[in-house]
Amino acid sequence: MGRWEPNARGRLEQAALALFAERGFEQTTAAEIARRAGLTERTFFRHFADKREVLFGGGTLRELILSALAEVPASATPLETAAAALEATGPMFQERREFARQRQAIIVANPELRERELIKLANLADALAEALRGRGVPDTTANLTAEVAITVFRVAFERWVDESNERDLPELIRESLGELKAVTSAGA
Amino acid sequence: MGRWEPNARGRLEQAALALFAERGFEQTTAAEIARRAGLTERTFFRHFADKREVLFGGGTLRELILSALAEVPASATPLETAAAALEATGPMFQERREFARQRQAIIVANPELRERELIKLANLADALAEALRGRGVPDTTANLTAEVAITVFRVAFERWVDESNERDLPELIRESLGELKAVTSAGA
Repeated sequence: MGRWEPNARGRLEQAALALFAERGFEQTTAAEIARRAGLTERTFFRHFADKREVLFGGGTLRELILSALAEVPASATPLETAAAALEATGPMFQERREFARQRQAIIVANPELRERELIKLANLADALAEALRGRGVPDTTANLTAEVAITVFRVAFERWVDESNERDLPELIRESLGELKAVTSAGA
Repeated sequence: MGRWEPNARGRLEQAALALFAERGFEQTTAAEIARRAGLTERTFFRHFADKREVLFGGGTLRELILSALAEVPASATPLETAAAALEATGPMFQERREFARQRQAIIVANPELRERELIKLANLADALAEALRGRGVPDTTANLTAEVAITVFRVAFERWVDESNERDLPELIRESLGELKAVTSAGA
């Protein structure tokens, strides 16, 4: 199915991002995205449940993070464990840097999408906390560590999507983590 | 206006919380809230723009935090400054502990309200970051500090609304802050 439409998913993504940027997310329909991509609406719905899923599709990120977390040596502290798991998303994002940047610009411009993104990150924090508890980290430490790790990730991600920034995401995560340590130890 | 209706706002709040808990937020109307409170719908709309505003009304929290922040001595570190500002909400919440607990139960049960709450906290983090920048804290430190302070606040607030917890909010904020410091310095 879809063999005769090379890279349909990628074409649909590109068309969607272009239209969201031109007209706004609300004003764009799935049919218009398909047309712009030179594909049928039916093909669009083979790849995405709706236009929002172009931006929030797939549980890939979560699974990538959780499987990376499972590989972190037990000797690592909870925060190092969470940070290492988040750093593992680096190659995936690097490969889709242009997509990530365009996506971010669209999300920032739309309050509803910003809310969706916050929820996604909150769910990711919950999943991280659960994985940490599974490694024997006490409940309250697991929650706090997961929340803080996601905060570090958000700050790093925002720096990374900034076009003037040439560094890669894992490096920026480590930088944010260093800043966090400086912020929490200052004056203590 | 409203002189003949003693504590109309408080009665409307209580009626709203009771109905949200009994029937769910979506299934409750402003008219029903007014009726339960023994007041008219017109009185309801003199106090709240809509039923959601019963839960998210007023910029009080934000103003309270920002004015407390302005009082923190310049010698405090950015994170201590933010934490002290957040601790200043203690008396207000303490006075409305039962409201805060009921409100939290309603919000946790409703995805749309959870999103709204996340947005509210994200906006609060932005306001904190701006206030820190106004005190000369560099941009990146201000953002990270504000985000982390809000995370500490959220964790403390969740503990505080837990009925089995007898401690007050400022104490729980300081406890979370101590845990944060432990989490970030461990193994460093």
